[in-house]
Amino acid sequence: MTEPRQQALEYVRRNRDRFLEELKDFLRIPSVSTDPAHRADVERAAAWVAERLRAAGAPHVEIMPTDGHPVVYGEAPAARADAPTVLVYGHYDVQPPDPLEEWESGPFEPTVRGENLYARGASDMKGQVMATIAAFEAVARSGPLPVHVKFLIEGEEEIGSPSLPAFLAAHADRLRASISLNPDAGMIAPDLPTITYGLRGLAYFELRIYGPAHDLHSGLYGGVVHNPAQVLCELIAGMHDAEGRVTLPGFYDRVRPLSEEERAELARLPMGEDFYLRNTGAPALWGEAGYTPVERATARPTLEVNGLLAGFTGPGAKTVLPASAMAKISMRLVPDQDPDEVYEQLRRYLEERAPRTVRWELIRMAGVRASLTDRRHPAVQALSQALEMVWGRRPVFKREGGTIPIVTQLQELLGVESVLTGFGLPDDRFHAPNEKLHLPTWARGIEALTLFFYNYGG
Amino acid sequence: MTEPRQQALEYVRRNRDRFLEELKDFLRIPSVSTDPAHRADVERAAAWVAERLRAAGAPHVEIMPTDGHPVVYGEAPAARADAPTVLVYGHYDVQPPDPLEEWESGPFEPTVRGENLYARGASDMKGQVMATIAAFEAVARSGPLPVHVKFLIEGEEEIGSPSLPAFLAAHADRLRASISLNPDAGMIAPDLPTITYGLRGLAYFELRIYGPAHDLHSGLYGGVVHNPAQVLCELIAGMHDAEGRVTLPGFYDRVRPLSEEERAELARLPMGEDFYLRNTGAPALWGEAGYTPVERATARPTLEVNGLLAGFTGPGAKTVLPASAMAKISMRLVPDQDPDEVYEQLRRYLEERAPRTVRWELIRMAGVRASLTDRRHPAVQALSQALEMVWGRRPVFKREGGTIPIVTQLQELLGVESVLTGFGLPDDRFHAPNEKLHLPTWARGIEALTLFFYNYGG
Repeated sequence: MTEPRQQALEYVRRNRDRFLEELKDFLRIPSVSTDPAHRADVERAAAWVAERLRAAGAPHVEIMPTDGHPVVYGEAPAARADAPTVLVYGHYDVQPPDPLEEWESGPFEPTVRGENLYARGASDMKGQVMATIAAFEAVARSGPLPVHVKFLIEGEEEIGSPSLPAFLAAHADRLRASISLNPDAGMIAPDLPTITYGLRGLAYFELRIYGPAHDLHSGLYGGVVHNPAQVLCELIAGMHDAEGRVTLPGFYDRVRPLSEEERAELARLPMGEDFYLRNTGAPALWGEAGYTPVERATARPTLEVNGLLAGFTGPGAKTVLPASAMAKISMRLVPDQDPDEVYEQLRRYLEERAPRTVRWELIRMAGVRASLTDRRHPAVQALSQALEMVWGRRPVFKREGGTIPIVTQLQELLGVESVLTGFGLPDDRFHAPNEKLHLPTWARGIEALTLFFYNYGG
Repeated sequence: MTEPRQQALEYVRRNRDRFLEELKDFLRIPSVSTDPAHRADVERAAAWVAERLRAAGAPHVEIMPTDGHPVVYGEAPAARADAPTVLVYGHYDVQPPDPLEEWESGPFEPTVRGENLYARGASDMKGQVMATIAAFEAVARSGPLPVHVKFLIEGEEEIGSPSLPAFLAAHADRLRASISLNPDAGMIAPDLPTITYGLRGLAYFELRIYGPAHDLHSGLYGGVVHNPAQVLCELIAGMHDAEGRVTLPGFYDRVRPLSEEERAELARLPMGEDFYLRNTGAPALWGEAGYTPVERATARPTLEVNGLLAGFTGPGAKTVLPASAMAKISMRLVPDQDPDEVYEQLRRYLEERAPRTVRWELIRMAGVRASLTDRRHPAVQALSQALEMVWGRRPVFKREGGTIPIVTQLQELLGVESVLTGFGLPDDRFHAPNEKLHLPTWARGIEALTLFFYNYGG
């Protein structure tokens, strides 16, 4: 290894405890982007990231307003003007912590138990943002920068990044880059460094069913009006057939079929039935007939009920016939499905199936296409080598079931491709109580990201 | 009219404004029996009733403990030892007021708008309890009592009266009566005084579906595990067939068929399609094929979803695959259905239909049989005449879709039949926001109850 690269790795090891303490500070800020009550916390998290980037050695850092939560933007030039430019993408916002009562320690009181750090955002993705800043600091403090580095750390990822497209369009010149490094994708296992080349898209809706003009006494009116909660259940039940397929008209028309080659590649991943049973704790698996679990979770579209609410849900027994019922319903999309078309398919389903005994309303909340990344890009190769150097084995390449809107947007709006990695693990409980980060994996991740900057700089 | 009866009616008219102010005091106490946070308020309501009964002229009043909320018991002897005994039943507890934001004025800030008094409990049933106490006071202040009067005012009606059976059994001797006067049944319209001779029973359940061990990210695991919210919807959707019939195995086996005579009688009530459309505001009616609306609402059994809860239900979009989902489900029963048998039918349905991809739990929350009252009882005749004297027309006799557990319990445990009436109207929004009481009807009701005491005393 050349001298600065070795120095940088030693810098990482020497400062690891400090990096962990800094991550805990970051995690103590409850930057829940979906909840207006946390607006000030979200701003506090942005300020924290900006300050931390400055301290790491970025000469230009600013907090840039958007129509929603601000973007933290930073720049650090390479020694050579013709070096490639890495645009680091991250987000400082987190999911809501509820249900609160299921957390063993407070969601915003980061706590180490065993090899793990527990807190909302530990894995998704404050831990990953901190790892990237730490790696950048190590490189910046160990000699001239081998690549130009730009940081784009947003505060709206968990609500579908509504302000980002306008932001990207408005600042396209400044954001120009050779690659976007996106550490928001996880690993398959602690010993399997992972590069993700495909992401599912997302279409998110709220469906509201309205029946009587007000809540009714179920004794006086039960049997005479169609209960909106029952109608909602009937409509949702009809959205899948007995084989686990989505029944919306035309839903599969634009789904790109999996090639035999890709199915063989996915079959080599250690993500069989046992993997999914272990990581979910479900009594049994379920899903679309004719596909393996990893295919269903990453390369096939799905429809999920994310929330249900109707009538009386407190303790006790209230004999109410509710006036309305609500469901949050989302679809994970694959190439080449279109969120607009999926919305129309759901509308058409409801028009065909909703009974005239109720009225309904369908609200669009997010729409992002799926994406696929070019695996031959030099940055992908540089990251692959960096991961191999730290873990001692070649990374696996996989498709991801989740959605990262920025990947699609950078491709569509700026022509910038993303290389996706990350050091979260499948049992990290992203979006759920007791989210955690595996600290030994995180420490390796910082080293791998450090090496990536050097490998890509050449 | 004899002299005391005329004096009593004048007493009612003279004191009407005071009775209304006293009712408002009563309504200001948020005696929500299902909510442990309101325990002290429930006790306050019991004390208010006891004090009010003493002031009305009951020589013996006490607050009697139960395993749950206390019973207010009062006694006032007739002049003649061999006079019949009226056991007045009422409840001082109320339903929860949520959703709070839909109230035009506070649920516990009684407000008169036009001819109506708005508050939780105004109609169900603090207004009815107050009417009965007012009538009793008028009779007690106008001469010797023509009947023995006992008061049994409980605090757990809205949670299914769990402590009442033990209370009735423990105090059977004291509670002996010729009839129970129960003013918790409403009227069909302001100009139609009503006596109710049939009540539906109730079986109330909470169904919980458990899938993965914890909430999952729907992007990572959507398509691989069976979503408990989806399973819940599928199970609920299967509980009715396309003709609105309940599909639980054996559900209709013990249902007593409606005779042609009774169908003809029900058809004469002014409760056709228009009545139900007007009182519910639903876009269209719905229900079991082959029966009229009034038959479906009062003399046929039903199954209702009273509440649904799963996953994320706040503002915004959270891509969670919930670990569990919950529904409150209740059935209205008719003679001769048995709540225990209905529980077994629901269990059997779930055993047959729930997929092995989830676990489930069924919690019993209430079970009350339906009841029918003897229309030839002298007290029923006395009440019928009293209503006719005030309204100038014979009352209608109807069956009621709601459930009043005390009626069944008094029949089964003490052999006491109930005569049911009341001065609530179909659009009073019992159990819903903006519950109200129609004050002119309420004032007539006080007069009718006053006359009932005299008519029954002979």
